[in-house]
Amino acid sequence: MSAYSSYQYFRVTSPAEHVAHVEINNPRRLNAFSQAVWLEYGKVFEQISADPAFRVAILSGAGDRAFTSGLDVKSASTDSPLTSSDGDEVRKAKYLRSHIEEFQTSISAAEKCEKPVICVLHDVSIGLAIDIACCTDIRLCTANTRFAVKEVDIGLAADIGTLARLPKIVGSLSWVKDVCMTARDFSATEALAQGFVSQIHPDKATAVAAAINLASLLASKSPVAVQGTKELLNYGKEHTVADSLRYTQVWNSVALQGEDFMTAMMSSMQKKKPNFSKL
Amino acid sequence: MSAYSSYQYFRVTSPAEHVAHVEINNPRRLNAFSQAVWLEYGKVFEQISADPAFRVAILSGAGDRAFTSGLDVKSASTDSPLTSSDGDEVRKAKYLRSHIEEFQTSISAAEKCEKPVICVLHDVSIGLAIDIACCTDIRLCTANTRFAVKEVDIGLAADIGTLARLPKIVGSLSWVKDVCMTARDFSATEALAQGFVSQIHPDKATAVAAAINLASLLASKSPVAVQGTKELLNYGKEHTVADSLRYTQVWNSVALQGEDFMTAMMSSMQKKKPNFSKL
Amino acid sequence: MSAYSSYQYFRVTSPAEHVAHVEINNPRRLNAFSQAVWLEYGKVFEQISADPAFRVAILSGAGDRAFTSGLDVKSASTDSPLTSSDGDEVRKAKYLRSHIEEFQTSISAAEKCEKPVICVLHDVSIGLAIDIACCTDIRLCTANTRFAVKEVDIGLAADIGTLARLPKIVGSLSWVKDVCMTARDFSATEALAQGFVSQIHPDKATAVAAAINLASLLASKSPVAVQGTKELLNYGKEHTVADSLRYTQVWNSVALQGEDFMTAMMSSMQKKKPNFSKL
Amino acid sequence: MSAYSSYQYFRVTSPAEHVAHVEINNPRRLNAFSQAVWLEYGKVFEQISADPAFRVAILSGAGDRAFTSGLDVKSASTDSPLTSSDGDEVRKAKYLRSHIEEFQTSISAAEKCEKPVICVLHDVSIGLAIDIACCTDIRLCTANTRFAVKEVDIGLAADIGTLARLPKIVGSLSWVKDVCMTARDFSATEALAQGFVSQIHPDKATAVAAAINLASLLASKSPVAVQGTKELLNYGKEHTVADSLRYTQVWNSVALQGEDFMTAMMSSMQKKKPNFSKL
Amino acid sequence: MSAYSSYQYFRVTSPAEHVAHVEINNPRRLNAFSQAVWLEYGKVFEQISADPAFRVAILSGAGDRAFTSGLDVKSASTDSPLTSSDGDEVRKAKYLRSHIEEFQTSISAAEKCEKPVICVLHDVSIGLAIDIACCTDIRLCTANTRFAVKEVDIGLAADIGTLARLPKIVGSLSWVKDVCMTARDFSATEALAQGFVSQIHPDKATAVAAAINLASLLASKSPVAVQGTKELLNYGKEHTVADSLRYTQVWNSVALQGEDFMTAMMSSMQKKKPNFSKL
Amino acid sequence: MSAYSSYQYFRVTSPAEHVAHVEINNPRRLNAFSQAVWLEYGKVFEQISADPAFRVAILSGAGDRAFTSGLDVKSASTDSPLTSSDGDEVRKAKYLRSHIEEFQTSISAAEKCEKPVICVLHDVSIGLAIDIACCTDIRLCTANTRFAVKEVDIGLAADIGTLARLPKIVGSLSWVKDVCMTARDFSATEALAQGFVSQIHPDKATAVAAAINLASLLASKSPVAVQGTKELLNYGKEHTVADSLRYTQVWNSVALQGEDFMTAMMSSMQKKKPNFSKL
Repeated sequence: MSAYSSYQYFRVTSPAEHVAHVEINNPRRLNAFSQAVWLEYGKVFEQISADPAFRVAILSGAGDRAFTSGLDVKSASTDSPLTSSDGDEVRKAKYLRSHIEEFQTSISAAEKCEKPVICVLHDVSIGLAIDIACCTDIRLCTANTRFAVKEVDIGLAADIGTLARLPKIVGSLSWVKDVCMTARDFSATEALAQGFVSQIHPDKATAVAAAINLASLLASKSPVAVQGTKELLNYGKEHTVADSLRYTQVWNSVALQGEDFMTAMMSSMQKKKPNFSKL
Repeated sequence: MSAYSSYQYFRVTSPAEHVAHVEINNPRRLNAFSQAVWLEYGKVFEQISADPAFRVAILSGAGDRAFTSGLDVKSASTDSPLTSSDGDEVRKAKYLRSHIEEFQTSISAAEKCEKPVICVLHDVSIGLAIDIACCTDIRLCTANTRFAVKEVDIGLAADIGTLARLPKIVGSLSWVKDVCMTARDFSATEALAQGFVSQIHPDKATAVAAAINLASLLASKSPVAVQGTKELLNYGKEHTVADSLRYTQVWNSVALQGEDFMTAMMSSMQKKKPNFSKL
Repeated sequence: MSAYSSYQYFRVTSPAEHVAHVEINNPRRLNAFSQAVWLEYGKVFEQISADPAFRVAILSGAGDRAFTSGLDVKSASTDSPLTSSDGDEVRKAKYLRSHIEEFQTSISAAEKCEKPVICVLHDVSIGLAIDIACCTDIRLCTANTRFAVKEVDIGLAADIGTLARLPKIVGSLSWVKDVCMTARDFSATEALAQGFVSQIHPDKATAVAAAINLASLLASKSPVAVQGTKELLNYGKEHTVADSLRYTQVWNSVALQGEDFMTAMMSSMQKKKPNFSKL
Repeated sequence: MSAYSSYQYFRVTSPAEHVAHVEINNPRRLNAFSQAVWLEYGKVFEQISADPAFRVAILSGAGDRAFTSGLDVKSASTDSPLTSSDGDEVRKAKYLRSHIEEFQTSISAAEKCEKPVICVLHDVSIGLAIDIACCTDIRLCTANTRFAVKEVDIGLAADIGTLARLPKIVGSLSWVKDVCMTARDFSATEALAQGFVSQIHPDKATAVAAAINLASLLASKSPVAVQGTKELLNYGKEHTVADSLRYTQVWNSVALQGEDFMTAMMSSMQKKKPNFSKL
Repeated sequence: MSAYSSYQYFRVTSPAEHVAHVEINNPRRLNAFSQAVWLEYGKVFEQISADPAFRVAILSGAGDRAFTSGLDVKSASTDSPLTSSDGDEVRKAKYLRSHIEEFQTSISAAEKCEKPVICVLHDVSIGLAIDIACCTDIRLCTANTRFAVKEVDIGLAADIGTLARLPKIVGSLSWVKDVCMTARDFSATEALAQGFVSQIHPDKATAVAAAINLASLLASKSPVAVQGTKELLNYGKEHTVADSLRYTQVWNSVALQGEDFMTAMMSSMQKKKPNFSKL
Repeated sequence: MSAYSSYQYFRVTSPAEHVAHVEINNPRRLNAFSQAVWLEYGKVFEQISADPAFRVAILSGAGDRAFTSGLDVKSASTDSPLTSSDGDEVRKAKYLRSHIEEFQTSISAAEKCEKPVICVLHDVSIGLAIDIACCTDIRLCTANTRFAVKEVDIGLAADIGTLARLPKIVGSLSWVKDVCMTARDFSATEALAQGFVSQIHPDKATAVAAAINLASLLASKSPVAVQGTKELLNYGKEHTVADSLRYTQVWNSVALQGEDFMTAMMSSMQKKKPNFSKL
């Protein structure tokens, strides 16, 4: 894992074959995100996306207190784009636009990552934690997770993706508006009932173990099939059925020519474990 | 509240600071909607949208029998666009199109209202009640609410918005098609399970009190943050993530320059209650 | 029902007035789909769509072992587009694109059918079973149904519509990605909790009886209203609210001129059962 | 024409059967638009859209100096939304958004008008003149027309519709960007070559006469056919071909039932002038 | 060419290698289209699309009087969907919708055809002639061609595709609205100036010869490259640039693996004529 | 200009205040693009986009023989993604997709650049030259420019943007399909007639001088206005009018608060040259 050893705020390990485990590693600051952290975050997932050694990634927070408490408010207020930009309202706005875009792009890296990303939420998981989790594919949490779309409480509409993605990943818009506008805490049970998470585990160790199990299962499947499924689901979520079907035709017209299809079908018939090449 | 005293079918009060309470006020007719009622309905929410005195609105029905029984069928059949229009099929169709558009536009006013609208459904809540509720942001109900997408039973596909909005605000399309095509009643419990409402309360008084509490909470937050959140969620629901992120950049490039951000962040750090200017 | 007697793989009966019951009728092969089966499947639903005798269709699998086990893998591997096509990668890809398109078009026939389609899932319901069910309007199942989005296990991203439609018909994208990427089984209870099905019944006979009851209810309603509701919900699911409202105006500008509206409204007022012409 | 006599800034006459001629009537101020003018402008076209007496409208400017010189800068600077709004940047922004929206909605009225609108541009036709002309259907001009997308020269991106519509109504985006970014004048010849206008006439009298001829021709046709054509072209311009074809099916499924189709077809066969009912 | 000998209204020949020439072959009736004609028309282009013998198609009209005079009005009035359908307005509308859809689908076959289609317009080319031409890829005409979007003159908005496609294939919307709403004739010169056609030839023989030359040139190129270009241009016309670039990545990720790329590049370097396999 | 001195394949100078001149600087190889060249190309325009010193950029090719001859075919064939990638068809396809995406992203940099980019085409301008030019805002050329969408001749559909953008920046789709499918040369005169370029100049020196004049004019305007115009035109080209108007409201709600609006309006009234701050 030496290729991942230079990151300052993230620890990347491989707890199982083809599985990367990314930990936000700044527990003394509740894994809060300053600009340096989110830029690094984007780079970690770009590297994993391109790294044929990995087929699945897990994301969790180091320590026992927080997945992440969100934006590092102290850092944001001392080194703020607001205080550091000169000029009139329009010039400030231009600076802010480009600042928000850079931030959004970094956090979107897990969504753009070609491999599935499993998110393990636990303890304090507020503000940016939700923006981050919305970009991952499958969300697990611990029973004591404290969730909140917190931005309204610092006078902001959440701008790093929660408002763009949350209405598309859970079912009840009444609930989405409630939690996004009140900034209230919601529990693991509520998150499960609303479909925001798929599993609750008693504690972080158990949740991470479950994530590793799930990741190992995904890593044992054809990477062509799994990565194609992520791509087509993400595409399908935002396009008409007609557009999706057309895109799927082109996508699978090459996927069906690969060796995985034959390997998997043969293994399935012969009831033996298939072995897939790197992707 | 004298600015709102001239409405014939609606009573507007302010049960808490910055909170407007709109009651459909024709209980003897089960709060049914004739054309005069829906035109007034649109005006009420346009006025609240533009009125800096209010930051949140609550919508409920007067009386103990109905939120609303929907279209005032008696009025619709005596003063019907069908009977009042001359000409051939095309000329009737043109008249009907413009009649439906006016009706849709009036009912859409709560969605277009820049402030959050909390809807309290109770007792009879059928037909147009669902079109109306779909345009509000957070839906509460009483345990005895009788819901139905009733239009099929008068020979119609619902045309005032239920069919356009319901698939986007709850999760299960199988359920949506069931209730929209059978026109069957569904209960508060079912509405909660499907995510159509967010809370059930034992009776109307309790439900309204809960709505006022929720509204007061929203009214205590930064109106810039809350109204921005409504706008960005409504935008996000109907655009791609990429489009939403771009729109959000521009939106927050000005919102971040306002005083609310600093006020809220300072209050948050100092653990004191912030005070926000009118919006 | 002689008009439907020539199908080789499907049995079409009429268990109630205006109700067609389509059974996938190849139980010895677990109702698996070869190319001949899916081409016939498309034709059945095209015929029902155009047949004024029917107002609702039910789809189930013959026998006690499977709704369908999905693709007939044996047939697919002996008569495969992969083995039967010559040429380089691009020529194979063209052949595969057109093969997938034909397959998708056949399976989409239930979605395109102008009448509501109720799907009864039971026992083995994997792979293509989910693509098929996603195209129907209301989904019921038996308690013992074994569901799985199975394609990943044969090295494929599902390409006959599941990935395009599933994110739009249930609420939790975390769950969708879980079941689509792991290819794991899920139960009737899970399918109900996620909103994929609307009802669970103890066994197939009960489930089919419930489907017939539901179909009879739909068949007793105005076909103009019911079919318009299907069209507008399908349209609404994939267009903006503004586009949907505009389309609805035009749609109902003619629907309101028909006899059903008056018939239904009069019957509703007079509390008697309405009678609607064929459509 | 007494129904149109109360407008202060517009003169509405009927130079031919079923033809309305709207003149911007403030020639001493070069037909510039203050807020009072644009609000009235919106009302004029709403009235014509709903008035069965008219089937076509012509728009021109009174006097010999200008179609319109655009925004009334003097009025805008004394009674500006910028100077009249209080509050911080966000509150000003909210006021400005709603101010721009009202302005856009007024100017869009000619596009939304169900009847075709023919625009006669002449002399000074700059700034808002282009926003206005982009909303009309067929554009004519005089040889001496001085066109310019002038907003950049007052420090603004044009916000009343030119930038949204111009790329969709002419062919060369290189030209669009040139004239919109330089704010330079362009001539009638250039406007014709680029497809912005369809005809050039030597002087205003001739141009208006040509517009009346064209309007009379349109007014002699089936209003069902002409208004349907406007609707379907406007729809087609902004939707996919598949969406347009579907919308067209519904639209014409009622239009074909009207009397105009039979009237026109019979007249066409019998080579006599058809007579169509009001619409 | 025996595979194409059974068509009643179309003659299909092969004037050059890989080139199909389709002639509308009912010159005594000015090549007018009854239902039988358009159904056959759709089948011709479906067959060519799937036939590896052909890489390009040319479409022209037999005889010296017309490309086509459009709808066969006589046939339409004796065997009209209007006269042959029973029931109320809604039932008629349903019949008409499905009739229009079938007609649209047939005429769209040239657009859906995977090979380029070159259209040679000449003499009478009105009404449906324009719907047809809009679906082809490259349009040529003779100097004496008489064009008209004629539908308004029979009381209709054109519903077989002109209004959906014409705004997307020429530049000037002012011109499009003029010709679509007035139903006036326009000349070859005007069609060239507006970009509707690409070449004018003195007479039909010369035009057809030019089409054959152009078709032969296209047929000499890599069919992977030419057909991919048609697909990507048609896709690009209706999607955002971002969507197009993504679709292109997937499309070319297989196209680049084919033999044509190497064949063409080698031939280009060696300055010799390449030879491509069938597609 | 030392900040731009490290580029190997591009020379960046400033021929006028606020104007950057980017030259593709590899004339001995006809300014052909290898991977190293396009990666650098992307970086140049990213740097200019963020550099407040510049308000406009000009792009031309060094030397007298070519703007660019397109892809460096020699480099592409020796260091090809096809030859350098291992694995089966799917693994090659993944490599190719990411290779194409990187290439597309680099070339899109001029479109994404917040400042207007003026392109001067001259001599050989084929293949990638068209992809590049399509991303710029205003296109000029010399009389002797030899244009061609050349990719079909190397067995490819153009995949770096021409097919996605060209149908949206000129008017005639018949012409677009002709030049993209035949790969034939077209002249400056033809490019002007089709609206692909806006000006023809006798030779390169004159064309560059004209570009500098145009750039200086743009640089003298409010950068807020000019850059806002680029953004809103690019947005408008790909969104509905309704979406564009809404985006414009938000955009200008901050732009109108800036100093440029007042500066420009005052200067305009006082007929003096305005002076704008950096942006």
